[in-house]
Amino acid sequence: MPDPVFSKIAIIGAGLIGASIARAAAEYGAAGSVVLYDMDADVRTRARTIGLGEVTDTLEAAVAEADCVFLCVPVGALATVAANVVPAMTSGTILTDVGSVKGEAAAALTAAGDGRIHLIPGHPIAGTEQSGPDAGFATLFRDAWHILTPSDDTSADYLAAVERLTLFWQRLGAKVETMDVARHDRVLAITSHLPHLIAFNIVATAFDMETVEQGEVVKYSAGGFRDFTRIAASDPVMWRDVFLTNKDAVLECLGRFSEDLAALQRAIRWGDGDMLMREFTRARTIRKAIIDAGQDSGAINFGRNPNVEPDTE
Amino acid sequence: MPDPVFSKIAIIGAGLIGASIARAAAEYGAAGSVVLYDMDADVRTRARTIGLGEVTDTLEAAVAEADCVFLCVPVGALATVAANVVPAMTSGTILTDVGSVKGEAAAALTAAGDGRIHLIPGHPIAGTEQSGPDAGFATLFRDAWHILTPSDDTSADYLAAVERLTLFWQRLGAKVETMDVARHDRVLAITSHLPHLIAFNIVATAFDMETVEQGEVVKYSAGGFRDFTRIAASDPVMWRDVFLTNKDAVLECLGRFSEDLAALQRAIRWGDGDMLMREFTRARTIRKAIIDAGQDSGAINFGRNPNVEPDTE
Repeated sequence: MPDPVFSKIAIIGAGLIGASIARAAAEYGAAGSVVLYDMDADVRTRARTIGLGEVTDTLEAAVAEADCVFLCVPVGALATVAANVVPAMTSGTILTDVGSVKGEAAAALTAAGDGRIHLIPGHPIAGTEQSGPDAGFATLFRDAWHILTPSDDTSADYLAAVERLTLFWQRLGAKVETMDVARHDRVLAITSHLPHLIAFNIVATAFDMETVEQGEVVKYSAGGFRDFTRIAASDPVMWRDVFLTNKDAVLECLGRFSEDLAALQRAIRWGDGDMLMREFTRARTIRKAIIDAGQDSGAINFGRNPNVEPDTE
Repeated sequence: MPDPVFSKIAIIGAGLIGASIARAAAEYGAAGSVVLYDMDADVRTRARTIGLGEVTDTLEAAVAEADCVFLCVPVGALATVAANVVPAMTSGTILTDVGSVKGEAAAALTAAGDGRIHLIPGHPIAGTEQSGPDAGFATLFRDAWHILTPSDDTSADYLAAVERLTLFWQRLGAKVETMDVARHDRVLAITSHLPHLIAFNIVATAFDMETVEQGEVVKYSAGGFRDFTRIAASDPVMWRDVFLTNKDAVLECLGRFSEDLAALQRAIRWGDGDMLMREFTRARTIRKAIIDAGQDSGAINFGRNPNVEPDTE
């Protein structure tokens, strides 16, 4: 195995992403050692029990000797955590995060910065519908995109820090892309934030239909509904913070979505089959593009049906 | 293998569902022989080539000697096809369908009925995002619900016909449920029709965002968007007909969905984190209920991540 990219990394927040970084860093030798801290004592105990790495009882102890600190907490907690972490870090080391809203994350890190630490916000486009330390696994980031949103600092030290963090994520199997903060937040609003909001919403709508029993919604969910419930099972705190902090981009997408939906609604009401055909037909090409880009499996029904070969056309 | 339920079945329409019934009937010995017809000559040729069963060049030849005829065509085509099929059928045999809107299907079958044939509308809650004869496979209906919406005919002959059709679907591995037409269409509007409409819509919205490139939508689709693209890849003709024929129930669900979404939008705009938390938290329990009911796999990310065990909690 090649030399570790960092001799010691600190992970603050031992949830799905933090635990997966810990597992992956050990598995692929990306860090000489891994130390974790979580503000929840039960999570710390669990992280110790399942062997995620060294677990400290204070945040300061976790970060003191780390080359790179990963903040793996909900976006709404970043400002407070970053402010506590930075003074305890060694000069010249790296502070990064994994938050889904980079505008908020960059602001939180910048506000905490004291000029001694390289601040490099980041966001792995990877996750599952599960949460907590037990949900983490080493292969989560393999073939996934990892987006870094570095500042406009062009000093050799900063660029070298970005290069090193890039190497770390590549060692975990990720493909690394650099993007500016505003663009990230616009792209993720449509590819991730709006889909989650819609999924949360349709689940709520279905369960409030007094003309249909909840048991029936569950029983016949294979008709399409079940596909939405996976992402609606994601961590509520994380998603609350996403919507509160990427408000403008989400509201812009949401406005367009509602406008488009109103047009479909009108076509249904007035029996405009041609309009429906036009919209439904173009949706087909996108699935193919996503599969061709390696961003989803071509297995039908997400591979739910056993003994059926994926379509290889 | 037990005796076939029917000595000969006829399948009109050799798409995903028709081809799957043909494959399953042969695989599980549910029919002594299978004969198919499709109005598209290319589909007939393909059905012959891949060995779905005997393929006739006229609809009348396909149904003449069948004990049971399965209409596997889009809902909008049912009335015409049923009117052509019924006169060619043997007295005392069964005519069923697989359409997603039972109000429309029951009306189409009833209009075509001449009193000699048992009319039993049906709907398998099974499918994939693919279409055409090659998409069919024998295990599609295993552990899936099949809903029958029989008429209120209580004659011994009709009840025996319903019993026999039930046995046929059970032989294919399905769980059979009986429901009245209006209830079916209300339940499916929320569990299947609305989810598909939303999926079609979000895909269209994403591709019309001029501030985000289409390549970026595809590239970062693992953030959630890709989950919606699977059902948006379903057959456009089938879905156009669903929305045109289950209009009232779909518009009712859609009205509620939009109302709920407007409430979430308002909560985002005014920073009401408590409201978001409340809605997002209850969505979690539904995923668990669906997995517990055996209506989806508990594998994380729909099993996309290799070498990760399904959550068994």
